[in-house]
Amino acid sequence: MKKAYILLAEGFEIIEAFAPHDILTRCGVTVKTVAIGEGKSVASSHGVAVTADLPLAETDLGDGDLLILPGGYPGYARLGESKAVGDVLKAYYNGGKLVGVICGAPTVLVKNGLAADRKLTCHSGVRDQMGAYQVTGNIVEKDGNLITGVGAGRALEFGFLLAETLTDAETVKKAKQGMQIL
Amino acid sequence: MKKAYILLAEGFEIIEAFAPHDILTRCGVTVKTVAIGEGKSVASSHGVAVTADLPLAETDLGDGDLLILPGGYPGYARLGESKAVGDVLKAYYNGGKLVGVICGAPTVLVKNGLAADRKLTCHSGVRDQMGAYQVTGNIVEKDGNLITGVGAGRALEFGFLLAETLTDAETVKKAKQGMQIL
Repeated sequence: MKKAYILLAEGFEIIEAFAPHDILTRCGVTVKTVAIGEGKSVASSHGVAVTADLPLAETDLGDGDLLILPGGYPGYARLGESKAVGDVLKAYYNGGKLVGVICGAPTVLVKNGLAADRKLTCHSGVRDQMGAYQVTGNIVEKDGNLITGVGAGRALEFGFLLAETLTDAETVKKAKQGMQIL
Repeated sequence: MKKAYILLAEGFEIIEAFAPHDILTRCGVTVKTVAIGEGKSVASSHGVAVTADLPLAETDLGDGDLLILPGGYPGYARLGESKAVGDVLKAYYNGGKLVGVICGAPTVLVKNGLAADRKLTCHSGVRDQMGAYQVTGNIVEKDGNLITGVGAGRALEFGFLLAETLTDAETVKKAKQGMQIL
């Protein structure tokens, strides 16, 4: 069974974290949320308190197949400031594991000097923080082991692309039927 | 400022609860989550632990403008079994306040004998529990003060329709831009 980790920093965007969580779970992927700060309780950008499955300090997430970084402010900024997040992101990206980054979180790639040669998308509000990166502005982008999404209103498309990459089209089709899209 | 309450029962669908939460908050609506059981911690249908803002036992939700019932199993079944939920639902619906119900939660209307004369939609999996109700199967329906949605994959559309009804088209347009849909 495939395994995905979602990193939660105080101020994360709840749809961007939990639309992928929901879709991947429906597709049979084991999904664990990981709090990057003290303790396991993390508040979303709109103040929703979620209890993560585990704190980043207690694991290296080495057994995962997919790492997801949601956006939301100041969540994505906090992900970018964390050395521990940078370390796990580098391990996944450089190890050829699937990495999913959405909204403001592509700036975390910049902060860690990753994926400058990849085509990607991000929220229009952080585009000026992306420097010379190849930002398309599309809804989602997939380039090698990197999948990016533009923002909260496209978190479902982002989640479906992650799920299709990690599982298969037939599995995702069934999830879409259960979610009443098909 | 308008105020919305979202009822959370153990086993609720997280996208159906928090896509509307996110959209309404972006539109300037005060949104509070309400746990219908013991305490304030409620697990979603996929085991995500959320701490609600308040327990239903401690308030009558009388100051709200909108009541939302998310689906998710067994969340919607628990909403249907709760007399306290039935009481607040009747107070909102019969009082002409806006009511939003999605996925399996339209069965809660049936259990409380409400809205049999309204056009509505629901998840295909609960259609046989809707008896002689006028189920269209559309993505969303609005009939008077009742807005219904078909399921998790359409929770954004459901949230936008609720927000447009409670605020205005210009406000929703700005939220959509922030969420990178427009």
